[in-house]
Amino acid sequence: MTASGVAVQVRALVFDVFGTVVDWRSSVAAEVLALGWPVDAPAFADAWRAGYAPAMQAVREGRLPWTNIDGLHRRILDGLLAERGLTPPEAEVAELNLVWHRLAAWPDSVAGLQQLKTRYPVCTLSNGNLRLLLDMARHAGLPWDTLLSAELFGHYKPDPEVYLGAARLLDLPPAQVLMVAAHPSDLRAAAACGLKTAYVPRPLERGPGGWMEPWTPGEFDVVADDFSALAAALGA
Amino acid sequence: MTASGVAVQVRALVFDVFGTVVDWRSSVAAEVLALGWPVDAPAFADAWRAGYAPAMQAVREGRLPWTNIDGLHRRILDGLLAERGLTPPEAEVAELNLVWHRLAAWPDSVAGLQQLKTRYPVCTLSNGNLRLLLDMARHAGLPWDTLLSAELFGHYKPDPEVYLGAARLLDLPPAQVLMVAAHPSDLRAAAACGLKTAYVPRPLERGPGGWMEPWTPGEFDVVADDFSALAAALGA
Repeated sequence: MTASGVAVQVRALVFDVFGTVVDWRSSVAAEVLALGWPVDAPAFADAWRAGYAPAMQAVREGRLPWTNIDGLHRRILDGLLAERGLTPPEAEVAELNLVWHRLAAWPDSVAGLQQLKTRYPVCTLSNGNLRLLLDMARHAGLPWDTLLSAELFGHYKPDPEVYLGAARLLDLPPAQVLMVAAHPSDLRAAAACGLKTAYVPRPLERGPGGWMEPWTPGEFDVVADDFSALAAALGA
Repeated sequence: MTASGVAVQVRALVFDVFGTVVDWRSSVAAEVLALGWPVDAPAFADAWRAGYAPAMQAVREGRLPWTNIDGLHRRILDGLLAERGLTPPEAEVAELNLVWHRLAAWPDSVAGLQQLKTRYPVCTLSNGNLRLLLDMARHAGLPWDTLLSAELFGHYKPDPEVYLGAARLLDLPPAQVLMVAAHPSDLRAAAACGLKTAYVPRPLERGPGGWMEPWTPGEFDVVADDFSALAAALGA
């Protein structure tokens, strides 16, 4: 299907957030650096993020009860501090844990979402908990129509319950929902549920020269360099 | 507690929608009138709305399985048509059923919400289903931070699960959430769950001279004539 065919068919856009809409690495590293802890701040950000998928996997497999992302972020952070023998004051740790609520948007995100919103409802579809997404939207000026979160479904992406739950709440067949993400694995899971897919690569997500998930040209319905290009491709 | 005391304590505002934010009666009557059916349009709107609480009660008592508001509105509408011996084309009935997605805001709603939003997150807390609230927000230009709906909790207001569910998703103690409504019964149920309450009477909800729920001065934390006055009372 061409991008213009997708534009005709889809009725709502749902977005991955961490990495796709916001630049978690720079934002987290900047706050870690400002604390003056004896750590390499970008590497600390990377290590924190690296604990994210395994923590969700522990929930998925029942090794942890349902825990929202604030709770998972804190568990990972506590582990990183213990490994490094660091014991900062509790208030400092608690405040840093909320850095994920105040991540900076990629430079094209706000204007691109505003343009896309003229034609389509734009919604999050994130593993971030609702309060995190709410704070982030107000902090970064992200003009979401509504927030959809894994927390509403008691499952984390890439579990199908999340993608199908979003389509259900939007009262649309999955094929009329377009998932936008910088992560091919997220898009493949969405496609397996029948959603359309738009890949927006974010080559700086893991820093200059950082690793990116491999993908095959042609496997997604739309590919766009940023949200402005996505809006253009979708006729918004 | 004074209004300024409430302003200091609350961290998020949640709003009843039908009647509080939007004028359902005028909007529904106008569309019924435009269809040219042989009915009194405002009375038809009133009868449709009168079926709303009993339909939710049927869900609450298990006489109906969980049915969202679009579904309940359609059941009530079908009943009204049958009582009147009317058999309009299905497409016309289906389209009219969606009038609840395109209700007009009260004149002060959009500006008042924009003002309130400068200080507080503003969220729906409506029995309307999420897609209905999404369409309505885009139609009427309502600047919600996010949509919270009974549909997320599988319970209708005034069940406590809805008020407590909102506080849980907002990650706030109930006493830091302010429920705004034109309906004392909604506010009393919110207060019973520990939420703060703001009463905004809408004397035209049921038309000029229409019935309003009785209330007692002093029983709510804040009383304001419209959303601009509410913003002023809350220091936004």
